[in-house]
Amino acid sequence: MSRYWSPLLKSLSPYVSGEQPRLPGLIKLNTNELPWGPSEQVLKALRGAADDDLRLYPDPDSSALRRAFAAAVGVLPGQVFVGNGSDEILAHSFQALMQPAAPILFPDITYSFYPVYCGLYGLQQQAIPLREDFSIALEDYRRRNGGIIFPNPNAPTGLLTPLQHIKTLLQNNRDTVVIVDEAYIDFGGESAASLIADYPNLLVIQTLSKSRALAGLRVGAAFGDEELIAGLERVKNSFNSYPLDRLAEAGAVAALEDHDWFVASCARLVNIRDGLLQSLQAMGFEVLPSAANFLFVRHLQHDARTLSEALRERAILVRYFDKPRINQFLRISVGDEDECAQLLQALPEILGSDAL
Amino acid sequence: MSRYWSPLLKSLSPYVSGEQPRLPGLIKLNTNELPWGPSEQVLKALRGAADDDLRLYPDPDSSALRRAFAAAVGVLPGQVFVGNGSDEILAHSFQALMQPAAPILFPDITYSFYPVYCGLYGLQQQAIPLREDFSIALEDYRRRNGGIIFPNPNAPTGLLTPLQHIKTLLQNNRDTVVIVDEAYIDFGGESAASLIADYPNLLVIQTLSKSRALAGLRVGAAFGDEELIAGLERVKNSFNSYPLDRLAEAGAVAALEDHDWFVASCARLVNIRDGLLQSLQAMGFEVLPSAANFLFVRHLQHDARTLSEALRERAILVRYFDKPRINQFLRISVGDEDECAQLLQALPEILGSDAL
Repeated sequence: MSRYWSPLLKSLSPYVSGEQPRLPGLIKLNTNELPWGPSEQVLKALRGAADDDLRLYPDPDSSALRRAFAAAVGVLPGQVFVGNGSDEILAHSFQALMQPAAPILFPDITYSFYPVYCGLYGLQQQAIPLREDFSIALEDYRRRNGGIIFPNPNAPTGLLTPLQHIKTLLQNNRDTVVIVDEAYIDFGGESAASLIADYPNLLVIQTLSKSRALAGLRVGAAFGDEELIAGLERVKNSFNSYPLDRLAEAGAVAALEDHDWFVASCARLVNIRDGLLQSLQAMGFEVLPSAANFLFVRHLQHDARTLSEALRERAILVRYFDKPRINQFLRISVGDEDECAQLLQALPEILGSDAL
Repeated sequence: MSRYWSPLLKSLSPYVSGEQPRLPGLIKLNTNELPWGPSEQVLKALRGAADDDLRLYPDPDSSALRRAFAAAVGVLPGQVFVGNGSDEILAHSFQALMQPAAPILFPDITYSFYPVYCGLYGLQQQAIPLREDFSIALEDYRRRNGGIIFPNPNAPTGLLTPLQHIKTLLQNNRDTVVIVDEAYIDFGGESAASLIADYPNLLVIQTLSKSRALAGLRVGAAFGDEELIAGLERVKNSFNSYPLDRLAEAGAVAALEDHDWFVASCARLVNIRDGLLQSLQAMGFEVLPSAANFLFVRHLQHDARTLSEALRERAILVRYFDKPRINQFLRISVGDEDECAQLLQALPEILGSDAL
C-alpha cells in the first residue's frame, strides 16, 4: 500500500495466473496451452510482417482481422470486436456492458478473473452455485441481475452447457447482457455465435490462445450485435487506440485462414484427451466429462494437493486450486502424446508409494 | 447508444486518433511516426521469436524487458512498469494513481487523451492554460489537485519544460502523483527519470513508438518509485495478466539494446527537424521551438485549415486541430530528407497561389 494509491486500487484483489516457470525438461500441464506450436502459415506471416512498416501505427480498427474472424465464425465484420487477448475484452465488456444497479451473476466455480473485474469496475456480484455434478444450473440465473457471464465449456471443470440451454436463458433474460466466454469451445462445443442475430444482448468471446496455439500472441475477439460491438469500440477508444500490434494482427489473420491446420490440430488434441481420460479412470480417478483441452480430476484415495506436489517433484506441473468444493481436484492440461505418456508413467509410482 | 450500454459508457467521449490511410505515395506527416524503420537488430529478434514458443503465454512480469528498460534509462528493474503502448500505461495510471477527491490538472493544450481518461475513471479535471508563448506555466499547478499530468516536450506544441522547473513543481507538490509523459523526450530533452529516487510521487512514462520507430509494436514503460510501480502492477493484474505478447517483448529488448542505432537515428531526425524549421521560417511561418519530432507552425497570412487541405490535395498529410487557441496551427511530423524536400517544394506553390 502507498499513500499515492487511489481508493479503488487499495480495494482491488488482483487475479493470480498459473505460474510460468521456464525450466528445461518441465512438463507444463498447468495453463491450458496447446502442446504444439501454431500453423507454419502463422510463423511465415509473422516473419513477413517484421519489416520497416513497424514504424507506423497499426490499423486502429483492425479491419483485416475483424474480416478474418467474421469469415471464420460466420458473422459480419461489424459484429466483431478484437482485443489484446480475451482478458482485455472481458475487462472492456464488464466496464461497457454490465449494469451497476444489480449483481453480475456467474458460477461459484469458474474463471476467477470475473470477480476481479467486478471489483475493478465497481460492480456488485453474486456467485451462483454449480449443481452437485458441477454443471451450470442456468435456471438459477433467472433473477434480477446487471449481467450474466459464464464460460462454455466452463473452466476449470471442462463441462459443456448445451446450446439449447443457453437459448432458453436468453429467452428469459432480455434486459441485460449475457456473455458466453468460449475460450475452449473449439475442443468439443458448438459456438453460441450462431445466436447473436436473434439475441441483441448476447456477447460471445473467443481467443486464439488455446485452439490456435497462440497464447504468446495475445489475440481475442468478441461477437455480438453491432450495438454491443459499438459499445466495446467506444470503451476501447477511451482506453487505448491501438491494442493490437502489427505482428499480432498479421499472425492472427494467418491463423484464422489456415482452416486445415486448425481442424487437424483440434482433432489430434481431442483424441489425446479422450485417451488420457480413459487411462486416468483406469487408475481410479474420477474425471469430469471434458469438452476442453484439460481434464478436471480427483482421486478418491489421494489428496489433490499432495498429488500435485508429488507430480511437481517429477517436473510435471498441473494446476491445483485451494478453493471450496474443488480442493480435491486437479486441472490437467492435455499435453502431447509424449507428455501424456510421461504423466501416465509417473502417476502409478505416486499412487503406489502414497498407498503404502 | 444502446439500452445495453452501461451508464458510464453512455457518458464517454472517446479519443480520436490521427487518420491512418494506406495510400501509396502518401507523405504521412500527421501522426509523429519516425520516417524510417527500426533497428535491423529489432527485425532480426522478431523473426527469431516467431517460433513454436508462441503457444506459451508470455512472461506475465516481462522481466527481461523491464531489465532492458532499467539499463537503458538508469533505474532499477523494480522501478519499471511496461505496457501495451504508453496509452495503456496512461490509462492504468489514471485509474491507479489519480485521486478522485480533487481535480486532475493538465495543460489546456496537450494530449487530448487525458480528459478522456478522466471521464473513463470518474475523475474531476481542470485544464490549466498555457502561457501566451504556449509554454507550460508550472507555477499555476500549485493548487489543490488529485494528480498532475503533462507531456514533456508538450504535444502538439513541441515545447520543452526545463527539468529544473519540474523539480520545483515536485518540491511544492508532495501529496499527489505527478506524471511526466515523455513520449518525445529523446528528440531534445532530458528525462525526469533521474528524479524518481528523490520524489516518490513522480511517474515518468515513455514509449518505443517514436524514437525507436516502433509505433506498430505497442510498447511503453513507466518509471517511478517501487510503490507506484507496485500499484500499476496491481491494476494491470486486475485487467490483463499478459498485456505484452512474446514478439513485442523480444523486439523491444532488442530495440533498447541497440544504442548505436538509437543515437544515430535521433541525431539524424533532429538534424532534419532543425533544417525544416529554418526553411519554414524563411517562408513566413512562425515555428514554435521544438524538442520533439514534429513542428507546430502557423502562417500569419494563411489559414491553417486551408493550408492543410491544400497539402492533402498534394498527398501530404499534416495534423490540423479545430480547437480554441490552436486552430491557426498545423502540426507537421518531421519526415525523412526526401519527404521534407517534397513538403518544402509544395508549400511555396500553395502559399503563392493562395496569395493571388
